[in-house]
Amino acid sequence: MQKKSLVLAVGVIGAVAVFSLPALTVAAKAKPAAKRINDGRAQCYECHEEIKTLKEGSRHASLSCKTCHDRMDEHMKDPEKNKPVTLIDQALCGTCHADEFRTLNQVDYEAQARKEKGVPAGRSPMQDKLLAPYGFTIEHNEPRGHAFMVIDQFAVDRFQGGRFQFKKGWRGVDATGKTWDVLYDTAEGNREWKPLPQTGMSGNPTCIQCKTSDHILKWKFMGDKDPRATWDRTSNIVDVARDTQNPMGCIHCHDPHGTQPRIVRDELINRIGKGAKLFAGPSGKTDLDVISFRDGFRKIGVMKKADSRMMCAQCHVEYACGAGFEFDTGKKIGYDDQRTNHMPLLPVTELLEHYKKINFFDFRHEVTGARLVKLQHPEAETYFNSVHDKAGVTCADCHMPVLKNKRGKTFKSHMVVRPRSHVKESCLSCHAHAKDTVEQKLYQLDAAQNYVRGKMRKAEYWLGQLIDTYAVAQRMGVAPTVLDQAREKHEEAHVLWEWWTAENSDGFHNPELARKSLAGSITASKAGVKLLNDAILMIKKDEQKK
Amino acid sequence: MQKKSLVLAVGVIGAVAVFSLPALTVAAKAKPAAKRINDGRAQCYECHEEIKTLKEGSRHASLSCKTCHDRMDEHMKDPEKNKPVTLIDQALCGTCHADEFRTLNQVDYEAQARKEKGVPAGRSPMQDKLLAPYGFTIEHNEPRGHAFMVIDQFAVDRFQGGRFQFKKGWRGVDATGKTWDVLYDTAEGNREWKPLPQTGMSGNPTCIQCKTSDHILKWKFMGDKDPRATWDRTSNIVDVARDTQNPMGCIHCHDPHGTQPRIVRDELINRIGKGAKLFAGPSGKTDLDVISFRDGFRKIGVMKKADSRMMCAQCHVEYACGAGFEFDTGKKIGYDDQRTNHMPLLPVTELLEHYKKINFFDFRHEVTGARLVKLQHPEAETYFNSVHDKAGVTCADCHMPVLKNKRGKTFKSHMVVRPRSHVKESCLSCHAHAKDTVEQKLYQLDAAQNYVRGKMRKAEYWLGQLIDTYAVAQRMGVAPTVLDQAREKHEEAHVLWEWWTAENSDGFHNPELARKSLAGSITASKAGVKLLNDAILMIKKDEQKK
Amino acid sequence: MQKKSLVLAVGVIGAVAVFSLPALTVAAKAKPAAKRINDGRAQCYECHEEIKTLKEGSRHASLSCKTCHDRMDEHMKDPEKNKPVTLIDQALCGTCHADEFRTLNQVDYEAQARKEKGVPAGRSPMQDKLLAPYGFTIEHNEPRGHAFMVIDQFAVDRFQGGRFQFKKGWRGVDATGKTWDVLYDTAEGNREWKPLPQTGMSGNPTCIQCKTSDHILKWKFMGDKDPRATWDRTSNIVDVARDTQNPMGCIHCHDPHGTQPRIVRDELINRIGKGAKLFAGPSGKTDLDVISFRDGFRKIGVMKKADSRMMCAQCHVEYACGAGFEFDTGKKIGYDDQRTNHMPLLPVTELLEHYKKINFFDFRHEVTGARLVKLQHPEAETYFNSVHDKAGVTCADCHMPVLKNKRGKTFKSHMVVRPRSHVKESCLSCHAHAKDTVEQKLYQLDAAQNYVRGKMRKAEYWLGQLIDTYAVAQRMGVAPTVLDQAREKHEEAHVLWEWWTAENSDGFHNPELARKSLAGSITASKAGVKLLNDAILMIKKDEQKK
Repeated sequence: MQKKSLVLAVGVIGAVAVFSLPALTVAAKAKPAAKRINDGRAQCYECHEEIKTLKEGSRHASLSCKTCHDRMDEHMKDPEKNKPVTLIDQALCGTCHADEFRTLNQVDYEAQARKEKGVPAGRSPMQDKLLAPYGFTIEHNEPRGHAFMVIDQFAVDRFQGGRFQFKKGWRGVDATGKTWDVLYDTAEGNREWKPLPQTGMSGNPTCIQCKTSDHILKWKFMGDKDPRATWDRTSNIVDVARDTQNPMGCIHCHDPHGTQPRIVRDELINRIGKGAKLFAGPSGKTDLDVISFRDGFRKIGVMKKADSRMMCAQCHVEYACGAGFEFDTGKKIGYDDQRTNHMPLLPVTELLEHYKKINFFDFRHEVTGARLVKLQHPEAETYFNSVHDKAGVTCADCHMPVLKNKRGKTFKSHMVVRPRSHVKESCLSCHAHAKDTVEQKLYQLDAAQNYVRGKMRKAEYWLGQLIDTYAVAQRMGVAPTVLDQAREKHEEAHVLWEWWTAENSDGFHNPELARKSLAGSITASKAGVKLLNDAILMIKKDEQKK
Repeated sequence: MQKKSLVLAVGVIGAVAVFSLPALTVAAKAKPAAKRINDGRAQCYECHEEIKTLKEGSRHASLSCKTCHDRMDEHMKDPEKNKPVTLIDQALCGTCHADEFRTLNQVDYEAQARKEKGVPAGRSPMQDKLLAPYGFTIEHNEPRGHAFMVIDQFAVDRFQGGRFQFKKGWRGVDATGKTWDVLYDTAEGNREWKPLPQTGMSGNPTCIQCKTSDHILKWKFMGDKDPRATWDRTSNIVDVARDTQNPMGCIHCHDPHGTQPRIVRDELINRIGKGAKLFAGPSGKTDLDVISFRDGFRKIGVMKKADSRMMCAQCHVEYACGAGFEFDTGKKIGYDDQRTNHMPLLPVTELLEHYKKINFFDFRHEVTGARLVKLQHPEAETYFNSVHDKAGVTCADCHMPVLKNKRGKTFKSHMVVRPRSHVKESCLSCHAHAKDTVEQKLYQLDAAQNYVRGKMRKAEYWLGQLIDTYAVAQRMGVAPTVLDQAREKHEEAHVLWEWWTAENSDGFHNPELARKSLAGSITASKAGVKLLNDAILMIKKDEQKK
Repeated sequence: MQKKSLVLAVGVIGAVAVFSLPALTVAAKAKPAAKRINDGRAQCYECHEEIKTLKEGSRHASLSCKTCHDRMDEHMKDPEKNKPVTLIDQALCGTCHADEFRTLNQVDYEAQARKEKGVPAGRSPMQDKLLAPYGFTIEHNEPRGHAFMVIDQFAVDRFQGGRFQFKKGWRGVDATGKTWDVLYDTAEGNREWKPLPQTGMSGNPTCIQCKTSDHILKWKFMGDKDPRATWDRTSNIVDVARDTQNPMGCIHCHDPHGTQPRIVRDELINRIGKGAKLFAGPSGKTDLDVISFRDGFRKIGVMKKADSRMMCAQCHVEYACGAGFEFDTGKKIGYDDQRTNHMPLLPVTELLEHYKKINFFDFRHEVTGARLVKLQHPEAETYFNSVHDKAGVTCADCHMPVLKNKRGKTFKSHMVVRPRSHVKESCLSCHAHAKDTVEQKLYQLDAAQNYVRGKMRKAEYWLGQLIDTYAVAQRMGVAPTVLDQAREKHEEAHVLWEWWTAENSDGFHNPELARKSLAGSITASKAGVKLLNDAILMIKKDEQKK
């Protein structure tokens, strides 16, 4: 408890969060104790060769190791006994990178406030029917920006019985900063606490690895159990949540030792290593260089040239992170199984086959029993092979436009923007040659999004028809073989639809793929409806004969 | 008819509406005729002691009684035979209180124009299904402000067959002023008049008592029948409507004799007298002083300190005012019954029990036969015990902000505003210390309202499921006992939901209560659906056995 | 193919589209060849008397015939062998009428971009259910202005399998100009081309006659087959589309020879000739003078005084143009039948009877089998007899307001505007005397439209109830005679509703008629639901007796 108090105390004075994690720092080669005096970074390199490679020659080369590591003198005196402390608070980076740090935590007031997706004019008006009985039907909000990625994960009715609430109530809903300055645990010290009515118990440690960088030294590669790891896939989610103070920070994308663009999300490194093609260049490969620390306990992937598509894909991809079931047997799959930390990194059209192959689904639909995967924000896969992707445009070009600060200095906005509110910087920096105007670009953007929204609504209508017809067919005694066929149509139609309510661009990332996928969904739903209606008609005819 | 012509004539010249009501003025003690000459207010006090108490020492003390009472000389000559005329037109008050009078009648162009609630992006998208076959499914509009409270009550398709229409058609829809300058009776002088198709015949005299102050001297306490009363609960609604010229005026909240803050709505005075707790202070009581006139024919409640929560609660509460039915027997309850002028003044969570106790409901649901109460604008009960209420904030603080007129003089806006359009005056006057901005306050407001809207939509989805499943269950022959249980779940789920579409803040008055209530609604609906589905499954199994 | 290349080549250089149509010019009387030398228009008149009547005395009188006709010298040398070429490109008119030409092609960025009507907050949220299985359920967009009338007809998923797409993708969605500069045919030269999934094959030549003036010399009156006609009602729609380069041009409403206001749409001329009353004056007749060319091959209707109601009614009316079925027998009606180029020109309340009389419907409803007519933009019929119509206001007064160009010269906007975005010019030019403000007019407009939208949503709810109840009744074995009665109620309810989602003013053209019609729709739907529910109840009772 001493440790936690310290962290909170430091948090309060607003400087840096300190994580005293003796067991989790980078493994050092054994060296004679006599040489371990702190006479500059050269001495550190004697044990930490990987760091030398990253740091020397880089723009961070001249920074003393003490800049980001505390208790160094003690460490040098007795390296085994006294581990240094690694400072990973974003504010430390912000002392030099002020504009980036400021915008990273900036509230996007143009994004909607907490807002349920499942309302008539929302992104997924029919979700209560189509996703029943999955936890997201409890509360599923439109995203409101990076500053809230941790807070909104915890303060939502589907998460752990609604136990985490805003300290200041609705007046605190736009507060940013340390998680536990903004939220509190209503269950803490309350023996009679019970989940709020109509809340869910979802949440798992893997999911959090996309929302924060806090656990970077406490989490083994892939989240496997390990004595050196504080948290793993099977940890108690409430404990993990309480240890999560910051939204994803600088070090998710930038190597602090050497400023190299990097990725740290384990499963992304894993899948690219195994040949995922999304970010490969003409050679069929990325320029990613994977560095392993402490015998593979941790891995990072360093790029020569920043490719924000990979950096953003650490989170903005479809991934499975919850406990599920086997497709063929229906047996439960627990968090001990690595399939609960899995990124397919595939186009939507190949997804159902893939999940069948790895034998995984998330939940059964309430009415049809269809085996469904709850999809997550697949912006990277959707963007893959789009017109913009093929033109070499990357995420940052549109979502992190170059702005000027008050002193006129340019910087890349680290408030990840909606291009809609920054058309001039986000779109016209490339499209200027065509004499396009902001008005025009918004019109074109609206057209593409409206078109895809129209198709989503149609796909939902037909999924609803399929579910309703299934219920009627079942009540009328349609044969199980026909119901099975209709259920498979539901599985197919579902994934081709839900993808588009899960991704955050309303199809703009790839309108052509959206069209194809949503048309496929409608085709599958209609086929299912026809199967069922034909069978119902047969039953009616048989009845009339009697 | 002479009387009516006079009133209209005076109305037209725009000065004051005169009500010559010999029978309805305050009862005066018998006095020798000789002394009855009008030599100043002292003489009036000789008979009218209650008035002296109110008037002397007040800011209106020095006003001659003739300011608001006509035909005084005649009255003094023969008090019994010649009753004075009481002038209750707001314009008279406006000669001194110009800013208040002007804003009282101001159109809020930021509020929506006539707009049906039962549309997809409206406040109650599923009302046609959930409220069937109640009159509000005919036309039920979002409110557009005090200036229209009478007009919108009459010119709506559910009211008296649509007979009252705008004189200038849609061009007259934003006209304010005397009711019968703006509207006309299409049935007048038209023998062949029939109700318009798809209109309703709703409307009753009690309801109007919240919309106007015109009947203040013509209506007995509680609306009971009395020879001294022109109108009572059983009066013909069209006659009452024709006699209603003005929206609620100054005298609803301000005593004209002594400027004391007051309430005049009978049932509110009645219920506070019987111990309703909503506005009580630490002592458990309000400071309300009830004054009775003419042996209880009229009562007013005078406050020492203005509490706008009570003043607004004269109308902004749930009340029963229509004919209904007994909960247990189903017998009709007519307007002669005092339950048709009833305010529960209770939190939503206690409401169903209360209506069962007083044995009253409004209508049966078309499909399930559930006994439902149509709820009305319960802003006061909802606000009760909210964060703002506990902080001592009252209605006027947010809805009647202090503004400046053209000459720089401050006044309280009597156009009851949406705080959303007046964040600076309404919110930041208190929250300024926190350096909050208008943008932030709107964001927080949106967050709370979006959250509640999301829950409303979910509650509606589940009510819809319950109704649909009931219909299926009934057709499949599910046992009456199960149907009865499901119907009771419907009754429970309905009241916990409809409350929030009836109150006008989209939950902002009390988001915590909204959450609890709507979660309760969903729980009840789901329980009902489960009951029915289980019973349907049993029937299917039984069928298969055969 | 030579011809086509020429047209396209000329299109590319942006000057004028040339149509070398020897067979289609105005019939000329036989004259001695000697006199046929081109010494001025007098010589032309020798053969072309109709033209003389139109041209002499008009503001175009002094224009040489060569202004709009090419290859005149050759023609004069041998009139029979060498036909002149008529230049009908709008740009030619634009050389004098620059402001009109510019605005005619202006994009209305305030109109929505491509946007599906069948979404919750759209104009027809339930269309997928109510119009099933008609082609409009594939894609049905809100209109975005005259500049796109051809492009949006071709680049829509219900048209010819989605084969026509934007050359520049979504970046080309606001491009205007020659059709085939903006769109391309994805099937051209692609032997393996197949319709895109979830597209339709709709489209027909008659429909295009409202979108373009390009075929004015190639289309026989009424679209009948004729050796002199390049295109007729039965032509291949793709061939017609490829030959369509321009949206409707100046000559649809203005006679090029004499500047007379005119109409050219065959069926409108035909129906007015047969006594349609919509545009008749007090005499019961219009001042339309029908001129016939080439023995009736072509007809134009010339007005003395411009009546934009007639000009706009060339397209903004309900018309049948697709293949259909006979109401009584269900037999197919092909494009050879003149009923596929038909305008009823009747109020909505008389429409179903009319279609029964001419024995025509478009499609059967998927669930009920109701015989339905897909309605089209009936703005003219709706406006007929409205308050504004009776006051003498015509379409152009509101939709083509007088604006000023940069040099201060006034002109009539030929971008047909939404009055909402031009209240000052469109509404206040008449309503100014009433001291109305823009804010007020928008409020009144909103009120009327919101009211009608509310009624539309109710009509849709009840149509949905009717369809759902029909399905249940059919499954439960309700007698065919009852189903037939319910189906007829559906037919009645449908036309009284769909009219209002098809017309583009959300009822503002005639709120009173909208009220009446939509109430009628609800009444019919409710009657159908009652019929079915009563029959279901009987069946249940019979079952219980057994």
